[in-house]
Amino acid sequence: MHPAAAQIRAGDIRAAARLMRDLDDGVPGAQDILKDLFPFTGRAWIIGVTGNPGSGKSTLVDQLIGTFRAQGKRVGVVAIDPSSPFSGGAILGDRIRMQRHSGDDGVFIRSLATRGHLGGLSASTVDVASVLDAMGFDIIFIETVGVGQDEIEVVYAADTAIVVCIPGAGDDVQSIKAGILEIADLFVVNKADREGAQRLVRDLQMLLSLAPQPEDAWPPRIHETVAVEGKGVDDLMSSLQTHRDWIQAHGADRRRAKMEWRFWSIFRRTLLEEARVESRLRQRMPSLLDDLLARRRDPHTLAREEVRALFHPAPRLSPDLSEP
Amino acid sequence: MHPAAAQIRAGDIRAAARLMRDLDDGVPGAQDILKDLFPFTGRAWIIGVTGNPGSGKSTLVDQLIGTFRAQGKRVGVVAIDPSSPFSGGAILGDRIRMQRHSGDDGVFIRSLATRGHLGGLSASTVDVASVLDAMGFDIIFIETVGVGQDEIEVVYAADTAIVVCIPGAGDDVQSIKAGILEIADLFVVNKADREGAQRLVRDLQMLLSLAPQPEDAWPPRIHETVAVEGKGVDDLMSSLQTHRDWIQAHGADRRRAKMEWRFWSIFRRTLLEEARVESRLRQRMPSLLDDLLARRRDPHTLAREEVRALFHPAPRLSPDLSEP
Repeated sequence: MHPAAAQIRAGDIRAAARLMRDLDDGVPGAQDILKDLFPFTGRAWIIGVTGNPGSGKSTLVDQLIGTFRAQGKRVGVVAIDPSSPFSGGAILGDRIRMQRHSGDDGVFIRSLATRGHLGGLSASTVDVASVLDAMGFDIIFIETVGVGQDEIEVVYAADTAIVVCIPGAGDDVQSIKAGILEIADLFVVNKADREGAQRLVRDLQMLLSLAPQPEDAWPPRIHETVAVEGKGVDDLMSSLQTHRDWIQAHGADRRRAKMEWRFWSIFRRTLLEEARVESRLRQRMPSLLDDLLARRRDPHTLAREEVRALFHPAPRLSPDLSEP
Repeated sequence: MHPAAAQIRAGDIRAAARLMRDLDDGVPGAQDILKDLFPFTGRAWIIGVTGNPGSGKSTLVDQLIGTFRAQGKRVGVVAIDPSSPFSGGAILGDRIRMQRHSGDDGVFIRSLATRGHLGGLSASTVDVASVLDAMGFDIIFIETVGVGQDEIEVVYAADTAIVVCIPGAGDDVQSIKAGILEIADLFVVNKADREGAQRLVRDLQMLLSLAPQPEDAWPPRIHETVAVEGKGVDDLMSSLQTHRDWIQAHGADRRRAKMEWRFWSIFRRTLLEEARVESRLRQRMPSLLDDLLARRRDPHTLAREEVRALFHPAPRLSPDLSEP
């Protein structure tokens, strides 16, 4: 076992934080450590939470952390928020939460950068969550702004997916992505004391009734909460537990599908990384760009030629032929 | 020249619509037609417009279409909206616009599906826009909900990038992505008659003043509009034209960088497609999944082995050895 993997298994938080940072930064070799941790994963309950900025999902997660902690569970949070370049959003939120939970070593919170991930955000996030899983955390929240395809995939990776909406946010139900609708196990209408909450609940019910629902699937539930006051959180917890029981009883296909998704997302990322290493394109790029800009060559044909050359390298000439 | 390419060059709108649909659906062979069209591209002015749902970006684009039409320009629109599974959002918006411009063959509007693009949304969108470019459209709007990494890349592909915000949408400036901030040439505060518009303008000014700004870069501008009433649209048009002049005078590096981005995004998509064809993984997936679920193998090592096998196939045994 890699020494860092052994340290992490032994509960060394600093070693775990270092590995997570390396995974987030794409440091080569970080995945070798994951390999040794992999046999110890698959035990945590991963809960994905997504919602637009301002939907109060961090506050909601905070309430749920409190409830799980009262049950003696260890809780990890992996937060992704591409929207906070400056002081706002997740970073500030994290600081507040960090403060509140700073004396509690049963809670570990980690924010991820999301830049330059080249479509690998989802794979990296699941990797980071799996470090917490291997350390024996019982519950892992993956919290993300529910917007792009990547974020949808992150939530898909979770065992239980929560989508948080708020009334009066403009287009309400229209702004819920088709993909999100299909993967949500629980909808939470937060800030449910605001005007328009009942309409939003009805709209969601209508959307769900329109969506095709296989008979053996989990029927998504809709909850109302006022997270800042803790209202509705107990009911939500109860549905969460029901969903957890349901996936343990009926979730074999689902676990299989999610593992397959995870494998392909790692495969894609690995493919892109290896191609970057193997390809000689970067050296030739200046002159190729001249050709492309002058429209002497087209990018599709060029890309195809280069990819085929990667997969089917021309046989090398034997030394006596190439070096006379 | 491919017959379809010749038809499109001759102005055949139905042939163009068919190719765009095939590009959007990833139909094999569609890119062969693009190859023949590529020499005729690079002339249109591509304007990317992004903003949250409800920001009024479609109305704004509609106003700009009217102004460009009054100048005798032919205008294309490629709209991407992953948020409208049902009747709302872009589809409805498109119908309204289609109606308004239905008698005008100087306007062509096309909505793209965004599902299943596997990170290739941005490349597909630019491909679709380039069909309009090759047909001689003068102005091409690419309109997208400004949310995920993919959407940011779509806007990056444009010659001029407009980011539309509205006051009172909750988190305002916080919800502007770091990536968006860096690529926006023009900010539009739409619905500027609403409360909070001035604060949003000030917040944007502050954000821009914090962002590092190279000396030879275009200094982003902030405009206020009330798009439904056409207010502020003339000033915006004037800034658009100034930006167009600026990129024509100073934009050589920028054009080069955008072409390089475009090539790599086509390369990535091609790589993933070819890997899917070449890899024998899918047949073996059921038993591999058994191993992964039982934690007998880990997905990172498996992915690496498979990718390396793709790039460095083992030499085949000669027939007399493999078939005794």
